[in-house]
Amino acid sequence: MRVLVLGGDGFCGWPTSLYLSDRGHDVTIVDNLSRRKIDVDLEVESLTPIRPIGERLRAWQEVSGREIGFAHLDVAADYDRLVDVLLATRPDAIVHFAEQRAAPYSMRTPATKRYTVDNNIRATHNLLVALVETGIDAALAHLGTMGVYGYGWSGTAPIPEGYLTVKVTTPDGEIEREILHPANPGSVYHMTKTLDQLLFSFYAKNDGLRITDLHQGIVWGTQTEQTARDIRLINRFDYDGDYGTVLNRFLMQAAIGHPLTVHGSGGQTRAFIHIRDTVRCIELALENPPRPGDRPRVLNQVTETHQVRELAKLVADTMAADIAYLPNPRQEADENELVVRNDQFLALGLEPTTLSDGLLEEGTEIARRYRHRVDPRKIIARSVWRKGMPTAEDLVSELPAEK
Amino acid sequence: MRVLVLGGDGFCGWPTSLYLSDRGHDVTIVDNLSRRKIDVDLEVESLTPIRPIGERLRAWQEVSGREIGFAHLDVAADYDRLVDVLLATRPDAIVHFAEQRAAPYSMRTPATKRYTVDNNIRATHNLLVALVETGIDAALAHLGTMGVYGYGWSGTAPIPEGYLTVKVTTPDGEIEREILHPANPGSVYHMTKTLDQLLFSFYAKNDGLRITDLHQGIVWGTQTEQTARDIRLINRFDYDGDYGTVLNRFLMQAAIGHPLTVHGSGGQTRAFIHIRDTVRCIELALENPPRPGDRPRVLNQVTETHQVRELAKLVADTMAADIAYLPNPRQEADENELVVRNDQFLALGLEPTTLSDGLLEEGTEIARRYRHRVDPRKIIARSVWRKGMPTAEDLVSELPAEK
Repeated sequence: MRVLVLGGDGFCGWPTSLYLSDRGHDVTIVDNLSRRKIDVDLEVESLTPIRPIGERLRAWQEVSGREIGFAHLDVAADYDRLVDVLLATRPDAIVHFAEQRAAPYSMRTPATKRYTVDNNIRATHNLLVALVETGIDAALAHLGTMGVYGYGWSGTAPIPEGYLTVKVTTPDGEIEREILHPANPGSVYHMTKTLDQLLFSFYAKNDGLRITDLHQGIVWGTQTEQTARDIRLINRFDYDGDYGTVLNRFLMQAAIGHPLTVHGSGGQTRAFIHIRDTVRCIELALENPPRPGDRPRVLNQVTETHQVRELAKLVADTMAADIAYLPNPRQEADENELVVRNDQFLALGLEPTTLSDGLLEEGTEIARRYRHRVDPRKIIARSVWRKGMPTAEDLVSELPAEK
Repeated sequence: MRVLVLGGDGFCGWPTSLYLSDRGHDVTIVDNLSRRKIDVDLEVESLTPIRPIGERLRAWQEVSGREIGFAHLDVAADYDRLVDVLLATRPDAIVHFAEQRAAPYSMRTPATKRYTVDNNIRATHNLLVALVETGIDAALAHLGTMGVYGYGWSGTAPIPEGYLTVKVTTPDGEIEREILHPANPGSVYHMTKTLDQLLFSFYAKNDGLRITDLHQGIVWGTQTEQTARDIRLINRFDYDGDYGTVLNRFLMQAAIGHPLTVHGSGGQTRAFIHIRDTVRCIELALENPPRPGDRPRVLNQVTETHQVRELAKLVADTMAADIAYLPNPRQEADENELVVRNDQFLALGLEPTTLSDGLLEEGTEIARRYRHRVDPRKIIARSVWRKGMPTAEDLVSELPAEK
């Protein structure tokens, strides 16, 4: 397949691009390098030393003998150039990661709220319009989030894959309808993914676009088989309060002797997936698209669920770390249950990588190797959901000496 | 009340601004005059000769002795200036009309699809972010559309006001949930209003904003008591295939001897409201806002429903016109039932103005007076929902001589 990967320089996009290339697909990355530029604004860097995109691509060609194309453009702003790239590459499939993906960043300031909505909605909509305009019938896979469903809405019922069957009372008795699961986003970021769902539904219905929306859990892990082949291919590892994801943050914190930062009681239950499964799921989704005229196919891209404080205890026990219970900068339920259906990916052949598979060790090793790159003042999460909400002081102001 | 009217130069915004000013409120219009500029692009003009905004405002001051403020800015683009206006005026209430409002225009070209989404979503989101940033606790009323619900989705059940009660099956038995009515938009324009709903839900929940979403039917009529007071205050009357609304188009067509253009079988049933009721509803909504922490209040701003072919027959019989059944440029059901709840506005004291109230006569008079301003080549609707859908040829190429 000829595949475009929009946002192919990011944390999920880069390993996906290499995986698809390694599997024999003809990959072109479209990216404006915005993730790297946000790091500049936040005065933080990936824990792992990621190389410039040009160097990454040259290294991949050396290592694999395969070429990955690159178009430097902003999908949200450069519509005409996006159309040109579509016409030049005529992709069979498109992966759409080209969205601002951090909930805390999306709540940080008026400017980041606006950027998240403007960027994410325009990127998605430009892509849909460009597909209609060019008539290119590509299978589109979009990275959504489990956060579109919210937490605890349906009691003890498992979260279905996108669509919920409900009964509606009418004068002629009850009727059954299958609806897009009601949206209950917990941040501006999550909200943009609920807007995306409505864009997808409309363009699938009106124009017959073939769209798969992948509601992904929290990604953990860093390396895939491909990114591990050369130091110049290393994937990014975010540890800061805005972009770092919970389990990777715990591993980094343990590696430098920082207490593990749990927000609130840690009673939040969330869905997780390892980055190695992310890349496999994407290929499975591209290979099994809906037909023209079908509603968007929704798959829950998750492999297991864990409560945050249980994860903290696991890492603390394994790595002899302390746990710090800090004020929660988010507005969210202190405790929730979570049962998620992921039958479709299992039926498509996914063999889940779970926490028990020893991959925590890999994260620990990376965190230890690059501990000198940590700025401890970037660890505490300070983007609050409403003005005036308390946040913790820095727990560690200088990087402790290596043991 | 100090009231900001965003989009206060448009077809609904202008009469609303005058009505609220006449009722003693202190009104400031915020508008970038985009509606007039779209007329320039479409090479068409309002049937009625509308005056420049400055002349309109001077005329209103002469006629009423009351001043209406004006800020010329683009709510979707000029965020910082919007914040300045909010801080300078500190409104008690805000009416948000600042969106591209024509379904056919929103389907016309890739550029108009993108403009509709970019403009409408950014305008709404900028406003919400600006209210949070400034801490101004204004009652916000937004003009939504009946089209968010779609047509025929719930069988014989009347369309509720925004929220639908459904039953969900769980392992512990059925539970009841009240959800935002599932979105079934029929065009990119209608889709933007379904996105707006999700923005409103999030900002009401996260920030306690007080928001009322008015799901309005198709507006008919032209003048209100205020716009009729002076020729310089006359409201706009759109008759072209993109912006003209169905009943006003029939009146114009009958006035110039053009067959009434019915798309498809005319079996579409739609909800209607007279412009005089629009302005009253807005004031009622502003005076009865939800409380902080409440979910958005949704009211169906409609007074009656009619089938399009019945409307055509009514106008044809009254004004001795022919009816032409043309290919439908929209993808929509050929026939539908429609029962709509509007209990809340009735409870708030609205006395509906209906088709039977003799106001068709007013529209007919206006159409006859300004018939020389019609460009008959702008009458046929040519914006199609999918490339290649057929549209009619012009039925009349020259304006017939006055009888």
